[in-house]
Amino acid sequence: MAGEMDERMVKGIGTALKLFPPGKSSPPSFQYPKEIVDDWNQFSVSTVMGDVWGREGLELKDRAKITLGVLAAMGKLEQLKAYVVGALNLGLTREEICEIILQIAVYAGFPTAIQGFAVASEVFDALDEEEK
Amino acid sequence: MAGEMDERMVKGIGTALKLFPPGKSSPPSFQYPKEIVDDWNQFSVSTVMGDVWGREGLELKDRAKITLGVLAAMGKLEQLKAYVVGALNLGLTREEICEIILQIAVYAGFPTAIQGFAVASEVFDALDEEEK
Amino acid sequence: MAGEMDERMVKGIGTALKLFPPGKSSPPSFQYPKEIVDDWNQFSVSTVMGDVWGREGLELKDRAKITLGVLAAMGKLEQLKAYVVGALNLGLTREEICEIILQIAVYAGFPTAIQGFAVASEVFDALDEEEK
Amino acid sequence: MAGEMDERMVKGIGTALKLFPPGKSSPPSFQYPKEIVDDWNQFSVSTVMGDVWGREGLELKDRAKITLGVLAAMGKLEQLKAYVVGALNLGLTREEICEIILQIAVYAGFPTAIQGFAVASEVFDALDEEEK
Amino acid sequence: MAGEMDERMVKGIGTALKLFPPGKSSPPSFQYPKEIVDDWNQFSVSTVMGDVWGREGLELKDRAKITLGVLAAMGKLEQLKAYVVGALNLGLTREEICEIILQIAVYAGFPTAIQGFAVASEVFDALDEEEK
Amino acid sequence: MAGEMDERMVKGIGTALKLFPPGKSSPPSFQYPKEIVDDWNQFSVSTVMGDVWGREGLELKDRAKITLGVLAAMGKLEQLKAYVVGALNLGLTREEICEIILQIAVYAGFPTAIQGFAVASEVFDALDEEEK
Repeated sequence: MAGEMDERMVKGIGTALKLFPPGKSSPPSFQYPKEIVDDWNQFSVSTVMGDVWGREGLELKDRAKITLGVLAAMGKLEQLKAYVVGALNLGLTREEICEIILQIAVYAGFPTAIQGFAVASEVFDALDEEEK
Repeated sequence: MAGEMDERMVKGIGTALKLFPPGKSSPPSFQYPKEIVDDWNQFSVSTVMGDVWGREGLELKDRAKITLGVLAAMGKLEQLKAYVVGALNLGLTREEICEIILQIAVYAGFPTAIQGFAVASEVFDALDEEEK
Repeated sequence: MAGEMDERMVKGIGTALKLFPPGKSSPPSFQYPKEIVDDWNQFSVSTVMGDVWGREGLELKDRAKITLGVLAAMGKLEQLKAYVVGALNLGLTREEICEIILQIAVYAGFPTAIQGFAVASEVFDALDEEEK
Repeated sequence: MAGEMDERMVKGIGTALKLFPPGKSSPPSFQYPKEIVDDWNQFSVSTVMGDVWGREGLELKDRAKITLGVLAAMGKLEQLKAYVVGALNLGLTREEICEIILQIAVYAGFPTAIQGFAVASEVFDALDEEEK
Repeated sequence: MAGEMDERMVKGIGTALKLFPPGKSSPPSFQYPKEIVDDWNQFSVSTVMGDVWGREGLELKDRAKITLGVLAAMGKLEQLKAYVVGALNLGLTREEICEIILQIAVYAGFPTAIQGFAVASEVFDALDEEEK
Repeated sequence: MAGEMDERMVKGIGTALKLFPPGKSSPPSFQYPKEIVDDWNQFSVSTVMGDVWGREGLELKDRAKITLGVLAAMGKLEQLKAYVVGALNLGLTREEICEIILQIAVYAGFPTAIQGFAVASEVFDALDEEEK
């Protein structure tokens, strides 16, 4: 699967660069076995960033809000961390991110929200530290 | 807990009326044991519609988008049905609702999205039927 | 695995008869492929009712309360129905069952509790109907 | 997104025809809003059947076994039904399908396995009925 | 939302002090963004400790047993740690806490129980260490 | 429950030794409270390794593939780590393990797969390190 740089991949990279522009805070990196890393990167960037985030029909900020809510609700904390960084880069405020996590508390449970707040707190603190 | 009509309950009912205004499509109703129905209604309307949805910091439409994403991702299909009705009443378009469900496919899995589309389809068809 | 009636199975059936004594309301029945039904029955009755519920260390009523909370929280609604029947047979009151479901609302989310209340309501109504 | 019939879609349809060949039992159909159905079909067939199932590295039967286990464990029952049909068409036996569901009982919980057995039972009975 | 100290908050703090009395072991602390910490504390203490745990209808020990089962089943390990501390403070024995986790193994899966045992083990060891 | 070494336990230990033979890489160890460790070990080895993995009807390698898929999909990462080690010992290749995780991405979500890849990567790296 790896190798070619097709239209979907180009579109996916384009979106990814809006969430994670060079010179801005970068998200946590994930480790992959070397047996799959190239195929996975092409597959996931093309599909998630290209096919889905690259669609019209919802603004990028809306996609970010929904994704933050879903990742917090599902307790996918490492990915949530990455998308909190991306959401800030897209222009969401810290207050909005906190509000999204509070919103999901009653749907996914208070412990789930508490986990989400801890992730947001960690990202915000790291950014404050960087800026010093 | 039941009985008094306090500030939180007033605020909660106010928000609930925006999602489900009289004369508009009503959501599916849920069955409760008589031993708990009054306490639950006061507790859940005050908390979910009052304390959470009644907060500033996010527009109602944003809260609807996030909630649709979360309920679809968690596979809470009866509640999703109710909130699809509410989201339409708040002014979200059918296209936006579909787009939200597609967005969560890559985060919560394709089968989860497929369930969500079936719920949306059922609500949309029922509305079309009502309007005939 | 099927066939023999060993000590674990005897203990499991003993516990099962406390939850579902003859002449009392019976739980919903579940369908199994004929290829597995005998092995599954022996395995699950021996393990769940024998090895786990047959242990000392917690009263049966406590095991029922915890199990109701967990099944409601996980949204396993058919099984929840069966255990609501069993819990009533063990002497839990309807009020206690409702209280358990309300308790889990803040941990597993309000939509999850609403599903649980609907199951309890259905069981209670069916029992009232039987008694007429 | 809809319209073109590209390489991924061709590959996806090729795989889908192995799971659901004409003249064999067909899976349950799912309802989609007309606003999204074309885009979704192209997206999901290309991605799930093309990009994933169309990969080398695992036999189709292996992909079926894993998918049955995962869908049963996640409680995605409508999709499980579809894949039980597909697995039978690929040559898995009923005994193997039951064994997969029993395997996941200890990892995802006994109630989850019981739900899975009910789905398998329903599919097997419907096939027996068709053959009469 | 923050600021006033109303009846619900007073009741909530009262319950919280039974789970975590001064001078006894304290639970792990959670990090919150400063943008939300005050609102969240008031909201969650009032709702979880006040509205729910403050209700009559179930003894505090019962609420603790159910909550431990649910948090273990949902894999909310940080929160489970806090409630194991609270449950011990309310008078549950270590044996009972282990029994609750074993009970949920067959409903939520053995890996989920294993995670729960690790949390209980960590809390018990820390307490033994404190007492030295 | 602890003490006797019955037929199920013997069978369970036999299977466990195939997944984790002496002299090969050992899985991560889990911590248990001393109040439950003996009962749990007997219960879980007899049930999971004896009653389930010890059954005929599926090859051990098939049980490993299904279990890896399910644990990855459920996000049970510590247990996934143990079974990745066991799967390698049974003869699965690293490529196959990666392929299983990629397979579940579309069913359980991309973030869930990413977590799984990180676990596989960690195990593979540790093995490479050992071999140096």
